[in-house]
Amino acid sequence: MSPSPGGLQVSAPIGVFDSGLGGLTVLRAIRERLPREATVYLGDTARVTYGPKAAETIRRYASEATDFLVGKGVKAVVVACNTATARALPDVVARAGVPVLGVVEPGGLAAARASREGRIGVIGTRGTISSRAYNEVIHSHRPDALVFEQACPLFVPLVEEGWTDEEVTRLAAERYLGPLLEQQIDTLVLACTHYPLLKPLLARVVGEDVCLIDSAEATAAALEQLLVSESLSNTAGSSAAARYYVTDEAARFDLLARRLLGEEVDHLEIVSVDSTG
Amino acid sequence: MSPSPGGLQVSAPIGVFDSGLGGLTVLRAIRERLPREATVYLGDTARVTYGPKAAETIRRYASEATDFLVGKGVKAVVVACNTATARALPDVVARAGVPVLGVVEPGGLAAARASREGRIGVIGTRGTISSRAYNEVIHSHRPDALVFEQACPLFVPLVEEGWTDEEVTRLAAERYLGPLLEQQIDTLVLACTHYPLLKPLLARVVGEDVCLIDSAEATAAALEQLLVSESLSNTAGSSAAARYYVTDEAARFDLLARRLLGEEVDHLEIVSVDSTG
Repeated sequence: MSPSPGGLQVSAPIGVFDSGLGGLTVLRAIRERLPREATVYLGDTARVTYGPKAAETIRRYASEATDFLVGKGVKAVVVACNTATARALPDVVARAGVPVLGVVEPGGLAAARASREGRIGVIGTRGTISSRAYNEVIHSHRPDALVFEQACPLFVPLVEEGWTDEEVTRLAAERYLGPLLEQQIDTLVLACTHYPLLKPLLARVVGEDVCLIDSAEATAAALEQLLVSESLSNTAGSSAAARYYVTDEAARFDLLARRLLGEEVDHLEIVSVDSTG
Repeated sequence: MSPSPGGLQVSAPIGVFDSGLGGLTVLRAIRERLPREATVYLGDTARVTYGPKAAETIRRYASEATDFLVGKGVKAVVVACNTATARALPDVVARAGVPVLGVVEPGGLAAARASREGRIGVIGTRGTISSRAYNEVIHSHRPDALVFEQACPLFVPLVEEGWTDEEVTRLAAERYLGPLLEQQIDTLVLACTHYPLLKPLLARVVGEDVCLIDSAEATAAALEQLLVSESLSNTAGSSAAARYYVTDEAARFDLLARRLLGEEVDHLEIVSVDSTG
């Protein structure tokens, strides 16, 4: 158990937080790609969703989540929430004292690299789209890109309803994606943690000529790189532990968590992270 | 300006609160039915929605909203939120010191009275349906009623998207209501404050033999009765003032408020009601 140059233990867990359970798709991608890494997940289910809340509120929530994870001894923090990444990443970085990764940069970078013609669509919640965070990241890597953004507020409830392969969902997707397809996008970023579950349906709607970028997978790949570059990879572990914390007993937690994570959630604890409570 | 028997001023406003903006449909029904009554609306937008939160959390939020309205000198409190009514009405009553009305009793009573055969459908959010609050109220007035409940979690985002007359929404409605229609319901309670905006579409889906009960209208009618019986009706006023408070700057507030309220919102203030903050 050798300490890294910065004094962090390589055996320490990766901390992952989201405003709710959507970040479990990011956790899932991380655990699939980095099976030796222990993980600590925090879902701020008492205050879900961050999207419609004021920037100041989101920054406070993200700071509290960061403090919680740092208190659990994590060696890195993944902000598995597009809203918190877009609104509060600098606050998390300032606070964490360990390497921090958001979901926006990896997804945006992967899209900038994957796009043939530089015509890139971005879909997400209203909060993510109105933040224009993906737009900025994509342009920082590919200044000539044309980015077409579309909020798809129905996709999260459709996923949570389990209607991931239904006529209703196909109609909603056609309606949301129609304007992007008219712009002849060649790449589409799924800029919401719930959307990986819609990938098969979205792939059918956009056709095989459009490359789908899954932010969760892009984030897991970026995390792998980050751990290597910071000499923080756990090369020794085998069956890495996963711990789960939520800030409120989420309704349908078991069902949703299983759907988003792809497996059962063990070791769940309800905690308070509200510094004012 | 004569004081009522209990010392309350008849010219005092009606207080109305909801976890967000949905309660504006209830406020709208109240203002249409009781145009002489001044109103104070509180939307707890910083903590919307209450639905997935734990009962204890909802009780604290509802108590804080009640304290806020009482502090504004209201003569009655309307809990224009199905979740808060189902989970926290006794807390509001214990705290308010003025007459209190929730949305569940009026809607349930109206359905029990309207139903020809006693076959009653109830649609609402997952939280409202799982509370079984409408079931209880309907049975308390009509013990032999058969109540069929269906959560329709997509309806709120569909309304907020403005897709109140769309193919996507019709398909979702057919899917949700199919099982209720198979049970040959003769009455359907719209047990969510957003649903009044779907009434024309829902009426087409269920057909003219099914009576639609709008909880917002039923609540306004019950409030009128309550004010009369408590000698609290304002018979003198004319163009009654409406004040609006929210706990966070809600995204798309203007658009959503106009859609739900049916008019512009003036006199809006952002306030904190969080007793721990």
